[in-house]
Amino acid sequence: MAKILTPRNENYSQWYNDIVVKADLAENSAVRGCMVIKPYGYAIWEKMQSVLDKMFKDTGHSNAYFPLFIPKSFFSKEAEHVKGFAKECAVVTHYRLKKDPNGNGIIVDEEAKLEEELIIRPTSETIIWNSYKDWIQSYRDLPLLINQWANIVRWEMRPRLFLRTTEFLWQEGHTAHATKQEAINEANKMHEVYAEFVEKWMALPVEKGIKTENERFAGALETYTIEALMQDGKALQCGTSHFLGQNFAKAFDVKFTTQQGKLEYVWATSWGVSTRLVGALIMAHSDDNGLILPPELAPVQVIIIPIYKQKEQLNEISEIAEKIKKKLQNKGISVKYDDRDTHKPGWKFADYELKGVPIRIAIGPRDIENNTIEIARRDTLEKKIYSFDNCEENVEKLLQEIQKNIYTKALKFKEENTHKVETYDEFKKILNEKNGFLSAHWDGTVETEIKIQKETKATIRCIPLDSEQEEGKCILTGKPSKQRVLFAKAY
Amino acid sequence: MAKILTPRNENYSQWYNDIVVKADLAENSAVRGCMVIKPYGYAIWEKMQSVLDKMFKDTGHSNAYFPLFIPKSFFSKEAEHVKGFAKECAVVTHYRLKKDPNGNGIIVDEEAKLEEELIIRPTSETIIWNSYKDWIQSYRDLPLLINQWANIVRWEMRPRLFLRTTEFLWQEGHTAHATKQEAINEANKMHEVYAEFVEKWMALPVEKGIKTENERFAGALETYTIEALMQDGKALQCGTSHFLGQNFAKAFDVKFTTQQGKLEYVWATSWGVSTRLVGALIMAHSDDNGLILPPELAPVQVIIIPIYKQKEQLNEISEIAEKIKKKLQNKGISVKYDDRDTHKPGWKFADYELKGVPIRIAIGPRDIENNTIEIARRDTLEKKIYSFDNCEENVEKLLQEIQKNIYTKALKFKEENTHKVETYDEFKKILNEKNGFLSAHWDGTVETEIKIQKETKATIRCIPLDSEQEEGKCILTGKPSKQRVLFAKAY
Repeated sequence: MAKILTPRNENYSQWYNDIVVKADLAENSAVRGCMVIKPYGYAIWEKMQSVLDKMFKDTGHSNAYFPLFIPKSFFSKEAEHVKGFAKECAVVTHYRLKKDPNGNGIIVDEEAKLEEELIIRPTSETIIWNSYKDWIQSYRDLPLLINQWANIVRWEMRPRLFLRTTEFLWQEGHTAHATKQEAINEANKMHEVYAEFVEKWMALPVEKGIKTENERFAGALETYTIEALMQDGKALQCGTSHFLGQNFAKAFDVKFTTQQGKLEYVWATSWGVSTRLVGALIMAHSDDNGLILPPELAPVQVIIIPIYKQKEQLNEISEIAEKIKKKLQNKGISVKYDDRDTHKPGWKFADYELKGVPIRIAIGPRDIENNTIEIARRDTLEKKIYSFDNCEENVEKLLQEIQKNIYTKALKFKEENTHKVETYDEFKKILNEKNGFLSAHWDGTVETEIKIQKETKATIRCIPLDSEQEEGKCILTGKPSKQRVLFAKAY
Repeated sequence: MAKILTPRNENYSQWYNDIVVKADLAENSAVRGCMVIKPYGYAIWEKMQSVLDKMFKDTGHSNAYFPLFIPKSFFSKEAEHVKGFAKECAVVTHYRLKKDPNGNGIIVDEEAKLEEELIIRPTSETIIWNSYKDWIQSYRDLPLLINQWANIVRWEMRPRLFLRTTEFLWQEGHTAHATKQEAINEANKMHEVYAEFVEKWMALPVEKGIKTENERFAGALETYTIEALMQDGKALQCGTSHFLGQNFAKAFDVKFTTQQGKLEYVWATSWGVSTRLVGALIMAHSDDNGLILPPELAPVQVIIIPIYKQKEQLNEISEIAEKIKKKLQNKGISVKYDDRDTHKPGWKFADYELKGVPIRIAIGPRDIENNTIEIARRDTLEKKIYSFDNCEENVEKLLQEIQKNIYTKALKFKEENTHKVETYDEFKKILNEKNGFLSAHWDGTVETEIKIQKETKATIRCIPLDSEQEEGKCILTGKPSKQRVLFAKAY
């Protein structure tokens, strides 16, 4: 069978796009920058949502829903915030269409012009803190721990499916606290939740750290980030958690009475992950045959395919297949039996490989004779004959092994592609040859950061949280530095 | 304790608003017509979503996600459709803000004007059928059974929390079929699914029927509806399912090759329910003390409240309470133990009553001595002493009984407020006195329908599906009629 994907080493970015489209995950829509998330891609997002939602609830958060629209004036209340988002906002100016009196279809009704324009939320801090003002009076109302699942619009000039789209789906947590320390703890806690989710469920190791001032969220005092490495050696920011200090409380005048009866401003955090994670999942693990999905997030974990010539053979095989299906379902494994007669087994093999189903079970007439089944792993493409009898236990074990193997492979890749760099020449050489994370000394100034970015396209992904203090010299300026930071080109 | 809600018989509409706001379900936002769904209200919606989502998946549907934006030109492609929605559309005209050069904050950047305006989806038929054009080529691609959970905007001049808001949350199913009959069957099936959900889970009996031509969805050939009666005798449309014929297939040129090799247009349905259902749930069952929630949709089914004077008593009570909590949780019952010392038991009693928690368990020192607990039902406000020992079984039974009782009460109300009417005078008299469903003969013309509406504000809610053929005379014109239809004033 001819390869249907552009190979990675030929054109990595085309390979990514091929997988997204050909595995039926998503496609571009008629609206520039906006994607259609197709059922198979959406099923992955639903799996992510359900795991994350449980993690948020287990850490005490409740869901709520705030308006899609933000009055323009709210937007300007926090100075840094508006600076960060003004250039990519979709603006609603009218609320009615009408028939063109000249007969050219429908036109915007100029009489239905809004007095104040409405911005489609690019993030919801402002509209939410405007509500919090009424919700918070006393220390008894705190902490307020709220999350929202929503769609977001940030006008995107160079869109890419899942990775950068004008509209995307996400969750945004917005919490309010009585003390600075409690808010910092919350931001840290959600940072940990994100790291756990990405490592454990997405099988993707991450670097945890804080952003430089220059890369911080617009309006935050500290941004915690998790950064993963893709197969082309470029980094992808997977989730961020922000300590917002009292910035939004001050902008929206949200004060509370302390237990001692004093009036104080509230402390805040916000944190979010988006459908971008689906892009990360695809990019990090897949190969030239298609998607590779970690079993924990695969919509279908096991596919069963019958191999037969005569109709009578199919009946025998189907009987066994249904038994296996039931056995696996009893173990909580999601399984599909594909007995369509419109497609040949070879076509099905390739299609489920393309779609990244972790385990494929094939059953033919000889298997019926021998009481066996053939099991193929998507991650290694290995095939092996198993007995039918206790196959559910073997499949269960194998799914765990695949999850672990995908993680281990990604971890090895990250380790092999993280380079300690001492000089700027070395830094540039590695970026030219192979990319990856570059661990290097930096003098701590925005000027140096921007100069390096302009010259090499590499940005500081994070100041790692777990790294040791170490005396060194900035690779660009030679000025003293106390800690290495992590540079990379990034998505 | 003073009543905190306006009584129903004083001002029904104020009573409704009081409950929504005081039970912390939702509130108006700073954006006119848009509401904030607060955590408690959102938890009810989440329960609804999870039940409905399972029902959709069990009937073969998959979720997907389509863009928020619809190009203006798409909108005009189906003539009836644009006529129905053009007057209530939010229109995006620009994609950037900038600093006002005159120093007055931020303004819309006129250089970032869109070539073609984007409409925020008021419903997604047009953007979805534009995608289906590429997804459907052959009979093998059919049926296509897709659902979307999304936010929707229809500009609302007279908004009311949950019932009519400019932005609301909903699901919209959009299916494509090879034959007319299959599409009609699908529309019927989802009509049944909605009726089952509202009756079984929301404990609200409905009338099932079809809409008159005048009340049909813009672009549909047939609209199936479920209509429920509120306590003020006004009807509320709870969900609709549409047979769209080939209208959207023709508008977007979606054809498929049949098994016989012929090219034919595809047949379509669409169907939706929204956060309006939360409004129906509140209005239908609640009383002057607050919300009454059917246990199947209550975010908290059982609340346990300790009654004590000394701290030592609380410890003893808490031990028992935690045991009860565990017992109930093992039965899959959602339960909360409220041992806050910031609020008195009386305050808590009233608050959970207001919030409609179906069962309240109170435990005091005397209960500890007697091995008993006091159980109060929210629906009847009855209190009874039970033994601690097998309390989980009693609570489980009681929850079922409450669910049933709420349904039976609503059914009785609907029956008592459905009136067979023979003359127009009688018709007007009942509308003046008490509202309700009016089952009457109608001559089948739009003119009569509109005249009755203008004179009485009553509309034809549906032509019931299960009613018998019966010869009669139109209440307004005296012309012959073959079937009674159901009139009511409606939300």
